[in-house]
Amino acid sequence: MIVVSEIADLKTIISEWKQNQETIGFCPTMGTLHDGHMDLVKTSKGQCTKTIVSIFINPTQFNDPKDFDAYPKNTESDLKLCEEHGVDLVFLPSVEVIYPKSQTPIQMSIPSLQTTLCGRTRPGHFEGVLQIVSKLFHLTEPNYGFFGLKDYQQYRIISAMVEELNFPIRILGVPTKRESDGLAMSSRNLRLSPKDRETASLIPRMFQLAKKTLLGGEKNLIVWKEILTDFLLTGSNVKIDYLEIVDPITLQPLSNLNGELLLATAVFVGEVRLIDNEVLVSP
Amino acid sequence: MIVVSEIADLKTIISEWKQNQETIGFCPTMGTLHDGHMDLVKTSKGQCTKTIVSIFINPTQFNDPKDFDAYPKNTESDLKLCEEHGVDLVFLPSVEVIYPKSQTPIQMSIPSLQTTLCGRTRPGHFEGVLQIVSKLFHLTEPNYGFFGLKDYQQYRIISAMVEELNFPIRILGVPTKRESDGLAMSSRNLRLSPKDRETASLIPRMFQLAKKTLLGGEKNLIVWKEILTDFLLTGSNVKIDYLEIVDPITLQPLSNLNGELLLATAVFVGEVRLIDNEVLVSP
Repeated sequence: MIVVSEIADLKTIISEWKQNQETIGFCPTMGTLHDGHMDLVKTSKGQCTKTIVSIFINPTQFNDPKDFDAYPKNTESDLKLCEEHGVDLVFLPSVEVIYPKSQTPIQMSIPSLQTTLCGRTRPGHFEGVLQIVSKLFHLTEPNYGFFGLKDYQQYRIISAMVEELNFPIRILGVPTKRESDGLAMSSRNLRLSPKDRETASLIPRMFQLAKKTLLGGEKNLIVWKEILTDFLLTGSNVKIDYLEIVDPITLQPLSNLNGELLLATAVFVGEVRLIDNEVLVSP
Repeated sequence: MIVVSEIADLKTIISEWKQNQETIGFCPTMGTLHDGHMDLVKTSKGQCTKTIVSIFINPTQFNDPKDFDAYPKNTESDLKLCEEHGVDLVFLPSVEVIYPKSQTPIQMSIPSLQTTLCGRTRPGHFEGVLQIVSKLFHLTEPNYGFFGLKDYQQYRIISAMVEELNFPIRILGVPTKRESDGLAMSSRNLRLSPKDRETASLIPRMFQLAKKTLLGGEKNLIVWKEILTDFLLTGSNVKIDYLEIVDPITLQPLSNLNGELLLATAVFVGEVRLIDNEVLVSP
């Protein structure tokens, strides 16, 4: 496994791979890797001849500097995990490599997709995501980009960016990997106290309840949302940032329960903000 | 010479060229081609093994719909000129190919570079330019992009975009091609009446005067600007949109005459808006 931190070194390898007509799969991450990330890697390895993982905690997508400072760093175990899973190259740049001192700030946004859900409570977050993913796409020149569906809004926004700007890259969404109790895997889970970790299982159980009631014939969106909200709030130390039912393509709120819908939630358990998303079908 | 209008056809050829390890040079244009454009082509052919010209009048960069409607179209003679100059591929898409009906609007901007000069009087123009050039770069995947220095602000903004988003493309600025009286070649020159065409020669003569006075030791920026403005206004039917002396990198106004400077102007002669730019050095 090759580990590079400098752009010039990365470019040398990419250029070799392109000459050898390799199919490049790219999995951007912020490190503290877990089985969820490794599912991206597995999917990439099934589809591509070379797999790149980037590990970069991107400062421009944190609206809260405290959240950025608290974001865990585990480079040594990350590299070990990548090696074990057959990653071909890890790109591990410093902040200075990605954002050199002399910059001319550029802004990117997809207003209709980023003013809802996480975008509403995390101003600037998706602008930062669009910027870093554009940069990493241009640096790694992949044929495929793999994104976890846990961060559904991010997946949707990146898909839209690729489509609107004609990036020569295919975006694939990888289903959410879950802990044994159903909690979506996330680097943030490590920050939960044992008690809060237990409480956090309310989130996947809420999704189970959502599926069950939907299959049971619930057609009233307002009632349904209330049932799910009330269920989450049975947990102590729980604060709902949002719980929304939106169109999976436009991310705009739905007014009735019919066909495909995205159930999206962000919940604070203690100090830790956890998100989960599932596309469900109302029968 | 290959002429393609559809993205799928373009991609087939680009992919073949990439496999054959061709070096691709790209010259984006809005058609009504003249010797200025052909200088881009010549520069590209000197540097690259394949040269692509795109001809696309981009609606999103026109803030004035009248200006868009009045923009000349001369596809037949454009293709002839490209063929004569050894262009390998002309990409000639329709508006529907570039902007399909179902879009999710994306916004790109570089505020510090696009709020001055043409950006101030043409709101939305450079957002449109960033968007279309990003799209065309991703569609043609060139190694080099060639831009005329007549449109200096555009050249600077594209260079900044490529740098800030790490596009794997090198941007080269090509010196302005001029008519025998010095007027910068432009598709818009065709819209000048014979009398206005004569008046328009005041613009290159103003640049001559600027160089002469600068070499003559003029050090007072305000006086210098007045001299140049007064000279332009000797023409009847002339309205100055702007005449600015700015830093060639930041495009911000200079406060004194020292070292490299960009003299930038946009002038209405009758109804036609003409621009010209030169980087000068104050001794």
